[in-house]
Amino acid sequence: MSKTIAALATAPGISGLAVIRLSGIKSFELIDKCFKGRLRISDAQSHTIHYGKIYDDNVLIDSVTISVFRSPNSYTGEDVVEIGCHGGNIISNIILDLLYKLGATLPEPGEFTKRAFLNNKLDLTQVEAVADLIHSISKPSAEFSARQLNGQLSKKLSELRQQLLDIAGFLELEIDFADEDIQFLDRNEILNKINDTIHFCDNLISLHKSSDIIKSGYFVSFVGFPNSGKSSLFNTLLYKKRAIVSDIAGTTRDYLEEYIYINELPIKLIDTAGIRESENVIEIEGIKLVEDVLLNSNLIFVINDISLGDNHSTELYEGLKKRYNNVFLLHNKIDLVGQSTAQGLSISAVSSEGIDDLKSFIFKEANKSFSRTNDVLINDRQSYLLTGIVDSLNNAINAINNNFENELIAIDLKEAINSIGKINGETWNEEVINNIFSNFCIGK
Amino acid sequence: MSKTIAALATAPGISGLAVIRLSGIKSFELIDKCFKGRLRISDAQSHTIHYGKIYDDNVLIDSVTISVFRSPNSYTGEDVVEIGCHGGNIISNIILDLLYKLGATLPEPGEFTKRAFLNNKLDLTQVEAVADLIHSISKPSAEFSARQLNGQLSKKLSELRQQLLDIAGFLELEIDFADEDIQFLDRNEILNKINDTIHFCDNLISLHKSSDIIKSGYFVSFVGFPNSGKSSLFNTLLYKKRAIVSDIAGTTRDYLEEYIYINELPIKLIDTAGIRESENVIEIEGIKLVEDVLLNSNLIFVINDISLGDNHSTELYEGLKKRYNNVFLLHNKIDLVGQSTAQGLSISAVSSEGIDDLKSFIFKEANKSFSRTNDVLINDRQSYLLTGIVDSLNNAINAINNNFENELIAIDLKEAINSIGKINGETWNEEVINNIFSNFCIGK
Repeated sequence: MSKTIAALATAPGISGLAVIRLSGIKSFELIDKCFKGRLRISDAQSHTIHYGKIYDDNVLIDSVTISVFRSPNSYTGEDVVEIGCHGGNIISNIILDLLYKLGATLPEPGEFTKRAFLNNKLDLTQVEAVADLIHSISKPSAEFSARQLNGQLSKKLSELRQQLLDIAGFLELEIDFADEDIQFLDRNEILNKINDTIHFCDNLISLHKSSDIIKSGYFVSFVGFPNSGKSSLFNTLLYKKRAIVSDIAGTTRDYLEEYIYINELPIKLIDTAGIRESENVIEIEGIKLVEDVLLNSNLIFVINDISLGDNHSTELYEGLKKRYNNVFLLHNKIDLVGQSTAQGLSISAVSSEGIDDLKSFIFKEANKSFSRTNDVLINDRQSYLLTGIVDSLNNAINAINNNFENELIAIDLKEAINSIGKINGETWNEEVINNIFSNFCIGK
Repeated sequence: MSKTIAALATAPGISGLAVIRLSGIKSFELIDKCFKGRLRISDAQSHTIHYGKIYDDNVLIDSVTISVFRSPNSYTGEDVVEIGCHGGNIISNIILDLLYKLGATLPEPGEFTKRAFLNNKLDLTQVEAVADLIHSISKPSAEFSARQLNGQLSKKLSELRQQLLDIAGFLELEIDFADEDIQFLDRNEILNKINDTIHFCDNLISLHKSSDIIKSGYFVSFVGFPNSGKSSLFNTLLYKKRAIVSDIAGTTRDYLEEYIYINELPIKLIDTAGIRESENVIEIEGIKLVEDVLLNSNLIFVINDISLGDNHSTELYEGLKKRYNNVFLLHNKIDLVGQSTAQGLSISAVSSEGIDDLKSFIFKEANKSFSRTNDVLINDRQSYLLTGIVDSLNNAINAINNNFENELIAIDLKEAINSIGKINGETWNEEVINNIFSNFCIGK
């Protein structure tokens, strides 16, 4: 932690501006070795900006702005300098090389945020929210992450943890007064409070599946026989030529995926490989290849080439319905037939007839998942810990109902308390922390 | 100019930080509509940073820092706000959408820098230096651009322009006193000063070719018959598998190019298509395809597969030498033959024997071009204008030597003065300006 770290904080690429972040006790000393402005940065007040030039010895490198953040009022809690230099692929690298030459260190991935955590600027749910926010693919998911970063989840968890700590405290107090047989806390009150916590955790766990949808998008797969027009439909929905469309059967290999947004909801469209008609519907190679895709899909459309008959894909549709949820039949090429009495949705990918209705249908289905969530999103790690908390609390309830010793009840409660602490980082170990930060980029 | 513009100033992508720039008279008013911090940004001092949150109505969007720059002390010379938000592909777009909803406008490409120019924060050579700096591909080119941004070229041009203005002024004064036949300035002195300016301009023009090398890199092409090992050599120099290497002749189609850096000099390696042996060497289809490439190359290596004989590619080598400069024979596959007495460089792309010598050779050749330049880099536009200045000044000299009327000498001088003004923007027109800024990105 004594090292002063420096890295590019903005994305690399051609742009007007790039920002390099320096954090550590030598930040000001280091920048003063290469920056010439009206005053020394070491003498500058916190939260002020200074224009000047960066020199490597006497060679002018760039005209920059220096933003000064004095500990503890910075992102990391340490002394921080942000260098706003010209964008592009070279200038920021030249400045970084210079800073490393002068004594700064290349940070580990996520080290800026790790320092923020270790300096109590962010708790673990907020740290994870930072990563989610940066990687978010839709407005809803970004908004959820922003709220989490604001500490919504941590606050609730802290309250629940405190409640359990109080209960455990009273239970231990009763042990000290065991001879006098005093109950400081009514057992029903304890049971109610524990049940409230279980209910809260169960609710979060049940939202986990929806969290995935919000974070990664609602997955819509298209399955069908070759030449049923899956790729054309895919392209029509995307408004561009992404899949290779041809009249030769079987031009789509494995699968293609791309995001579209319907009313700001992120929808991942997946164009699967064509299924060869000659083989047995259920055991077809094509379905095996895309089995994982279909399992992870929230919505599956079986595309039927209606010009070959209303029931041309019925066997395939029925087969898939047995194995997966949310499977729908979608008749394509209605421009080639006159009127049709076929059941299900009907479109023409070529003429775009019915496409708006299809989009409305997808939106309605997707919105069910998005609106099922409340204001909290959890990730796999948090879901795993919450499941453990529920187990421990159920054990505690069992212990209370069986009139077990206070010591035994307290052990279960402490396990739950410990797990809550792991979620927001009130209790943590190096391994968990390193695992979380290893997914970060260098400059964060 | 009355519009307040907003755009992403940093490169898009996954990163810790993204910066949105707002410029115009309503910058502070606009940000106060969506930012909540300790104080209103309208009340904040210039060059201060404020932490707070961005809200769309009551929906929390992100925790941000706001940097305040009050006119005229900002990049554009206008009131500027920089919003430091979380990186990634969504958050900055949500904030920008919000700013546009609140009244900000999407800028034209380069509009931030154009405003800086119109507010006299940068002259035209500096504007062009900003673009060069952002797009620079090497440390030398970035350093040249940084110096140009610092005003090196403008300063010299301004001095020369002033000198010519003084001369023109005296010449016109002499016209007023024509009856008295007074010479305010000795004709030899005038000729000396004009000749100095011509010399300065000629020198800049001659550096233009080198400028290209510094800006775009030193181009090194590899030509040879199929299977001579061009692609293997390309990969060995790049340390990675970029070209598709196989034992089947002719696997490289058209050409591949990639940059390497030798001692910080940017070298563009170009792997051309194999030339089919069956055809006439000079008229080969392959060479025609890569003719443009070879014309633009600073160095051309003809790769000879020495396992097929020392002279296997001699005819090709001699043919190319007649048409292009700087053509060298490079024997490859020396690992397959024992000792060789072949003239020229010898390497083995497979065993890496001789590769260091080859790199030293390329560096020596490239360095001649890089070290030929002084501290000024000019672009096509500037070179074109400088050529016009030299023409005008030569006309002026001719007029003086032929004892033409002062009026005629002054016309030539004014043309030169006007052209200098076009280079640094002291005289400009909308069309030139728009052309320069159209190459900028939106956020600059």
